Amino acid sequence: MRVLGVDPGLTRCGLGVVDSGPSRELSAVAVGVLRTPPDMPVQQRLLTIAAGIEEWIVRHDVDAVAVERVFAQHNVSSVIGTAQVAGLAMVAAARAGLPLGTHTPSEVKAAVTGNGRADKLQVQEMVRRILRLAERPQPADAADALALAVCHVWRAGTPGAGTSSRQATPAQEAWARAELAARRARPAVRSR
Amino acid sequence: MRVLGVDPGLTRCGLGVVDSGPSRELSAVAVGVLRTPPDMPVQQRLLTIAAGIEEWIVRHDVDAVAVERVFAQHNVSSVIGTAQVAGLAMVAAARAGLPLGTHTPSEVKAAVTGNGRADKLQVQEMVRRILRLAERPQPADAADALALAVCHVWRAGTPGAGTSSRQATPAQEAWARAELAARRARPAVRSR
Repeated sequence: MRVLGVDPGLTRCGLGVVDSGPSRELSAVAVGVLRTPPDMPVQQRLLTIAAGIEEWIVRHDVDAVAVERVFAQHNVSSVIGTAQVAGLAMVAAARAGLPLGTHTPSEVKAAVTGNGRADKLQVQEMVRRILRLAERPQPADAADALALAVCHVWRAGTPGAGTSSRQATPAQEAWARAELAARRARPAVRSR
Repeated sequence: MRVLGVDPGLTRCGLGVVDSGPSRELSAVAVGVLRTPPDMPVQQRLLTIAAGIEEWIVRHDVDAVAVERVFAQHNVSSVIGTAQVAGLAMVAAARAGLPLGTHTPSEVKAAVTGNGRADKLQVQEMVRRILRLAERPQPADAADALALAVCHVWRAGTPGAGTSSRQATPAQEAWARAELAARRARPAVRSR
């Protein structure tokens, strides 16, 4: 399974593609950030980002898209732009006929660090370790996009865990149990 | 000038097309509401609405798109969906190479009723009169979309009034002055 994670934002939109191999090992395929300047008309910024997401879906031939779930309680100064970019990512997934998962920031942090309130550095460090990267992904938006993709792979088999499918197959349930056991066995992250 | 007004919403998205004739008289070309069911996956709802807006732009061959400006202080339970649909309308305008205007609800109400805090019935009644319709447009979302388009036509020549263009030409400035004078001469609406 190859997942595109999207950390939505109007100024910086993080994109990360993660592969899950046959023995469930994870690897990073691509990571990047779409940037749009604040002095560009907002519709052009949104169009640039929509085109960028669509291009990544095709170029990396992804099987699923994972997007951060945006709440109204989010940072008030940026929530509208963040929600709009998340909406564009969701539409891009739907247009491509791909399954979509939405995950909250705390679900993503809990998935990769074991702590739903982990800080950015801890998320970057765990993404580096999980994907066996030489360095921590920079900037935080890029790391968050990879973390979203990792979270999606690990939660994909869990019934009701943010995916669009409503029912899990027996194989998915078995997978979910195995994942849960594997996650419990994973060593805790040292706090910084 | 033919303007598509979009009153964004996930459950009901109002669409209204207004023509401004050579002697600046306004007429309604089309009005409708895109509806998506709450039990449909959100990415399918967004895709359905995006496709609907794009279809209206092409079918009615519009020259500009006017979208309600969404604020974070908007109704908390629906602000994310409303912002996302507004974003899709903005991207549809950009994709079609059309100028975009965004107008706040109070700007729209002030434009059509003279009162930025007018109620829905007053907006519906003034839209009916301005466009010389036999009945008040129903539901409110449809009337609001027509009101957005009317507001856009009347504000289009006003420098800095929510349009993407940054500088007004001398002709636009003359038009703005004439519009302002015409608006001042318009009789006040009786309050209900």
